[in-house]
Amino acid sequence: MLNTPYLLFLGDAPDALSAKVAQGVKDWRPENCVGQFRQEGCQADMGLPDMTIQEAVDAGAKTLIVGVANRGGHISDSWNSVFEEALAAGMDIASGLHNLLTDNAKLVELAEQHNQSLFDVRIPQVEFPIATGKKRSGKRCLAVGTDCSVGKMYTAMAMEKTMLERGMNATFRATGQTGILITGGGIPLDAVIADFMAGAVEWLTPDNDADHWDLIEGQGSLFHASYSGVTMALVHGGAPDALVLCHEPTREHMRGLPDYQLPSLELLRDTALTLARFVNPDCQVVGISVNTAALNEDEAVALLKEIEDRMQLPCVDPFRHGADRLVDALS
Amino acid sequence: MLNTPYLLFLGDAPDALSAKVAQGVKDWRPENCVGQFRQEGCQADMGLPDMTIQEAVDAGAKTLIVGVANRGGHISDSWNSVFEEALAAGMDIASGLHNLLTDNAKLVELAEQHNQSLFDVRIPQVEFPIATGKKRSGKRCLAVGTDCSVGKMYTAMAMEKTMLERGMNATFRATGQTGILITGGGIPLDAVIADFMAGAVEWLTPDNDADHWDLIEGQGSLFHASYSGVTMALVHGGAPDALVLCHEPTREHMRGLPDYQLPSLELLRDTALTLARFVNPDCQVVGISVNTAALNEDEAVALLKEIEDRMQLPCVDPFRHGADRLVDALS
Repeated sequence: MLNTPYLLFLGDAPDALSAKVAQGVKDWRPENCVGQFRQEGCQADMGLPDMTIQEAVDAGAKTLIVGVANRGGHISDSWNSVFEEALAAGMDIASGLHNLLTDNAKLVELAEQHNQSLFDVRIPQVEFPIATGKKRSGKRCLAVGTDCSVGKMYTAMAMEKTMLERGMNATFRATGQTGILITGGGIPLDAVIADFMAGAVEWLTPDNDADHWDLIEGQGSLFHASYSGVTMALVHGGAPDALVLCHEPTREHMRGLPDYQLPSLELLRDTALTLARFVNPDCQVVGISVNTAALNEDEAVALLKEIEDRMQLPCVDPFRHGADRLVDALS
Repeated sequence: MLNTPYLLFLGDAPDALSAKVAQGVKDWRPENCVGQFRQEGCQADMGLPDMTIQEAVDAGAKTLIVGVANRGGHISDSWNSVFEEALAAGMDIASGLHNLLTDNAKLVELAEQHNQSLFDVRIPQVEFPIATGKKRSGKRCLAVGTDCSVGKMYTAMAMEKTMLERGMNATFRATGQTGILITGGGIPLDAVIADFMAGAVEWLTPDNDADHWDLIEGQGSLFHASYSGVTMALVHGGAPDALVLCHEPTREHMRGLPDYQLPSLELLRDTALTLARFVNPDCQVVGISVNTAALNEDEAVALLKEIEDRMQLPCVDPFRHGADRLVDALS
């Protein structure tokens, strides 16, 4: 678990999109953000107070979150000098970059010297067990998608937010680096050794209160030739009681696989439910989350209604209209 | 790829079962075995000439295969002194033990000094790519099981043997350490990083002659909560044209999972075929392989007939009656 609160490092972000990790933390965990650190030329802005490293430490910041993607796989000297200053001032650093903090000998040495930690959240920090398949107490909801990158993380985060606002007992469970940085914990499932994938998901979603829901971030898709094994481990390790189907209606082919059509929502429903019930016979598909960002309001409403009528399940865009109806469906 | 031929190291094997890797090499690749190395008290015998290290080198042996399991996760001094002698005499060493050869500094140093290699076949030796899902030339057959350890490797090896005897163009593709040691190449799929599993299987079964068949060793089971993700990566990375269903009829529950019943062969057929067709729409289930070792001949014949009549597919025990009918079914 990362130490909160955070200073969000935006560096010299060339545009808002390159700072999407910082945006995620700001959107979903604003209470964890004391400020932002921006360098000359930075084109991203989280609307947080701009702070120096020392100001952030004085404001209580415990971890510098690298909230921006680097360009060309290179971390510049100007970034590294900020990281060095942060360690010396008493902050941990957490990063989801491909270039690892722990591959930088000077940062490793400084962290040791100042008793701070470097968290490369792409690297599993735990030796996970083999899955046992044992029934756990508490309830679990998993987002599964017709494709990668269709809004599975957003859906689970939005459901958690709605549930917490209603006073329900719920926890978002991150399975990818962005989710880990946003929430401060989780597993980088795609970096886990094959034999331990399902065990890692069980570890992430342990026994809990009978009324507690884990909202498990999905990964990949059962229909994506490159990543379906990772998704399968989530379906069996997560042992979900509830599935939410996630879809992006304008996708023309599977992400990165031009020869592959997306499956229908019906095929996703039937496939995911069949597989999930091997481990949890009581599993149900409770709703559908559609990312309608590419549609105007009228088109979005019409599409959601069409899918809802066809599938006979609550169908919403949680970004556009909130996650209430999905949460209502968790009986 | 391991250098052939081999000297099979049986050490002080306490019984025949502990030398099952050596037995596999002897059964399936007798032409690769120049001899066996046994220590005092060894209770296993492959029926090969007993040789000293030097005799084996003189007979042309290139690799010492650790064909026996160690006890209690400890490699004894007497084993290590044989390994040291083998390296000094000019042999590579290959092992599938949990204790790695490459964790032994003295062996690493000796190997370097004598320009020999240490192969820990549990450790991937290649940086595998992300799967592309692209159609490859040639044909592929994958063994899928109702459970782990039901005879998937044996089935694929037996089919390869029959095909080669018939002059067909075929290659067994190992996906686990025993298969790698037997055939000298392959991937330890359960040790691959999640994101690269399907890519590793694509790498293992590349473009080939139009009439060539890869016989892919299966792993785990789509119904095994601990390992189903690994199996899924085989189904999608392997993109099989043909599936053979494998089953062990006396298993009372899923291996290691006392609360889980085995699926029916019908459910395995429907599930595996549905998933395989996401990547290869032409995939067919061509036959069924049943491990009848626990039954007498009459019981075995009756069971095979019952399943064949029920499933309307060739159903054989390849160990008992040969793999001919499975090979015939590869149209």
